[in-house]
Amino acid sequence: MSSVTNLSGGHGESELPGRIMAGEMAEQPAVLRRVLEAGAPAIREAAEAIAAKRPRFVLLTARGTSDNAALYAKYLLEVRLGLPCGLTSMSTTTAYGARPDLRDVLVVTVSQSGGSPDLVASTMAARDAGAITLAVTNNADSPLAAVSECHVDILAGPEKALPATKTYTASLLSLYLLVEGLSGGDGAPATVLPELAERVLARGDEVRQLAARYRFAERMVITSRGYGYPTAKEAALKLMETSYIPALSYSGADLLHGPLAMVDNISPVIAVVTDGKGGEALRPVLERLRGRGADLVVIGPEAQVAAASAGFVLPTAGVPEELQPILEILPLQRLAYEITIARGQDPDAPRALAKVTQTR
Amino acid sequence: MSSVTNLSGGHGESELPGRIMAGEMAEQPAVLRRVLEAGAPAIREAAEAIAAKRPRFVLLTARGTSDNAALYAKYLLEVRLGLPCGLTSMSTTTAYGARPDLRDVLVVTVSQSGGSPDLVASTMAARDAGAITLAVTNNADSPLAAVSECHVDILAGPEKALPATKTYTASLLSLYLLVEGLSGGDGAPATVLPELAERVLARGDEVRQLAARYRFAERMVITSRGYGYPTAKEAALKLMETSYIPALSYSGADLLHGPLAMVDNISPVIAVVTDGKGGEALRPVLERLRGRGADLVVIGPEAQVAAASAGFVLPTAGVPEELQPILEILPLQRLAYEITIARGQDPDAPRALAKVTQTR
Repeated sequence: MSSVTNLSGGHGESELPGRIMAGEMAEQPAVLRRVLEAGAPAIREAAEAIAAKRPRFVLLTARGTSDNAALYAKYLLEVRLGLPCGLTSMSTTTAYGARPDLRDVLVVTVSQSGGSPDLVASTMAARDAGAITLAVTNNADSPLAAVSECHVDILAGPEKALPATKTYTASLLSLYLLVEGLSGGDGAPATVLPELAERVLARGDEVRQLAARYRFAERMVITSRGYGYPTAKEAALKLMETSYIPALSYSGADLLHGPLAMVDNISPVIAVVTDGKGGEALRPVLERLRGRGADLVVIGPEAQVAAASAGFVLPTAGVPEELQPILEILPLQRLAYEITIARGQDPDAPRALAKVTQTR
Repeated sequence: MSSVTNLSGGHGESELPGRIMAGEMAEQPAVLRRVLEAGAPAIREAAEAIAAKRPRFVLLTARGTSDNAALYAKYLLEVRLGLPCGLTSMSTTTAYGARPDLRDVLVVTVSQSGGSPDLVASTMAARDAGAITLAVTNNADSPLAAVSECHVDILAGPEKALPATKTYTASLLSLYLLVEGLSGGDGAPATVLPELAERVLARGDEVRQLAARYRFAERMVITSRGYGYPTAKEAALKLMETSYIPALSYSGADLLHGPLAMVDNISPVIAVVTDGKGGEALRPVLERLRGRGADLVVIGPEAQVAAASAGFVLPTAGVPEELQPILEILPLQRLAYEITIARGQDPDAPRALAKVTQTR
C-alpha cells in the first residue's frame, strides 16, 4: 500500500488526524510545477521591474515559516547578487516608530496569508520611507499585496492545515525564480524539482521508520550551514508546532559557540547536510557532534547519511546546492507529521494556534 | 552574609565551582564605570570617524554572546538613527565566497576575543568590498582589531570563565555610546548604570530563590520584544551553555507564529518585560501565555512582576528603555549560574566548549 496515496486522502472523507496536512504535503510536486509554469512569467516581470530600480540593499520581513523562506532568499541574494541583506526587526517600526531611510532599499515581505496587520503596517511604512516594496504571498487579494508596489503570487492554493508546508516550498521556489530573474537566469535548473519531490514524497515509509526514533524524545537539536540553515529552522518550527517537541535550531558555527554544551549522548541531533559548500563547512561540526556521542541523523547525500546514526538520502545529483532546500524540507515535514501522529495528536490543528496570526 | 562578597571570591582561592564566573559577574559595575570614563572618548572618536563617512546601511557580524550584543545594536541603530541594518550570514562569504558591494555600508564586527578566524576573514572581505569596518572587541591587540579600520575596546579586562558575562554588558554599553556618538548624544543617560547594576547584583538571594523553581526543568522558553529581545536570546544561551537546559528564545510575536503550541502548564516561561514600548507590545503575548497556564516569571517593572507567577523587579525608573538591557541580563546571568551550581555542575567550564571558538 502506497503511503502517499493513503495519506493524500483518497479514502479520507473521515476526520483522520493529519488528513489535511498530509494532503497538502502531497500536493507539493504539483504546486512546484504550477510555480514553474504558471507563476514564472509574472515573477520574471516583477524581477525586471525591481532590477530597473537598482536596489543596493535588501530587507526581508516575515514571521514564522515565511521568515525561514525569507532567510533562504537572504542567502540567495547575498551569494548570487552580492546584495547586502538584513532581516527586519519588525518592532523597530511597529512599536518604536522608527522611520529609516530606505531609498535604494528593496523590502521583501513574505506572508502566506498576506493578512498580518504588522506586516501590512511595516510594508506601508517602508514604502513611505522610499523603499521598493515586494510582497510574496499566497493571496493576490490580500491587504499586503494591495499595499506593495510589486507582488508575487506563490500559487500554492488554499492552505488549510495550520502547519504550513506547500506554501513554504512554493515560497522558496518563487524566491529562487525571483533571484534568477534579477541575475539574468532562466530558472532552468529548477525544472527537475517536481519530479524529484515526487520521488522523495513516495518514500514516506522511510520517514515513518525514522520517526519511531523520536517517539519519546524530549528535545531535539537541528543544525545545518549555509543554504541548508533555513531548512533546519523550518524543520524545528514544524516539529514544535505539531509534535510540541522543543526543537532548537542552530547554524553549525553558532552551535559551537555555546549550545554544543547541551548536546550529550542522549541528545537527538538532526543535521541537514547540503551537497555543496554549506555541507562541507558543516563537516567539522558533525565530527564534534559524533565526538560528543550525539545521536546524529543526517538529511543529505548518501555518503553523509552512511557516516551518521541514521538518515534520509536525498537525490541531490545534478541539483544545485541552492535548490536543495526545496527537497530537504520534505522528509522533515513528514517527520514532524509522523511523530505527531505517533503521539496521538492532530498535526492539522495544533493547540493554541490560528492560521492567520494577528500580531501587531 | 552578602552573597556578592561571598561570590566575588574573597575566600575563594579554592576551586569552588563557578568561582571565576561569579567574580566576573561581580566586576560588572566596575567595568561599566570604566567604559563610561576611560572608554567613552575613544568611542566618541570612532563615532565621529564613522559619521564623517555617512554610512547608509549597517551589517553586524558576530557569533554567540557577541551576536546578541550585535542584535541590541541593530535595534539602537534602526530606532535611533533610522539606519537599515542586517545581521551577517557569515557563510555567504566564508563558504560561498560572496563578494557583495559594500560601499556606504558600515560593517560592525563584535567579538570578545577578536580571534575567531571566520570573523577576521569576513571583516577583511568586507573591507575589500568597500565597507567602513568597525571592530568591537575586548582585545586591542587582536587580529580582528588589526584588520578593521576602526576599533572600540570594551575594556572589560581578561574574561576567563567560559560563559561571557562582563564582556556582554561592556559590549552593550560600548555600542550604546557609539550610537550616542553617531546621533550627537553625550551618553549622559548611561551614567546611572554602574550604581543600579550594583543594586541588582546585591540581590543574589532573590535570584537563588528563583533558581530553585528550575531545579528539575527540562526546557525553558524565554521571550521578550524590542530592546529586551537580545536579553532573551542571551539568557537562553547562558542557560544552555552552563546548566545544559534547552532554552528556546523567541520574540513575543514569533512565539505566536508556531512555538506557542509547545507551551503548556508545565512549561516554564521567562519574559523580559522592558519598561517602555517593547514591554507594551509584549503584553498581549503575556496574556496568551497566562491563558495557556504557563509558569510565567517576569524580569521587569514591579507591576508586571506582580501579575506573573514570580519574577525579579528591575529598577527601571529613570532608565531609558534602550539602556534597560544592560540591567536585565544581570539577574539572568546569575540565574544560569545558580541553576548550574544547584545541579552540581561547574559554570566556569561547560563541557565541550573552548573560550576562543575556531569556527571558519
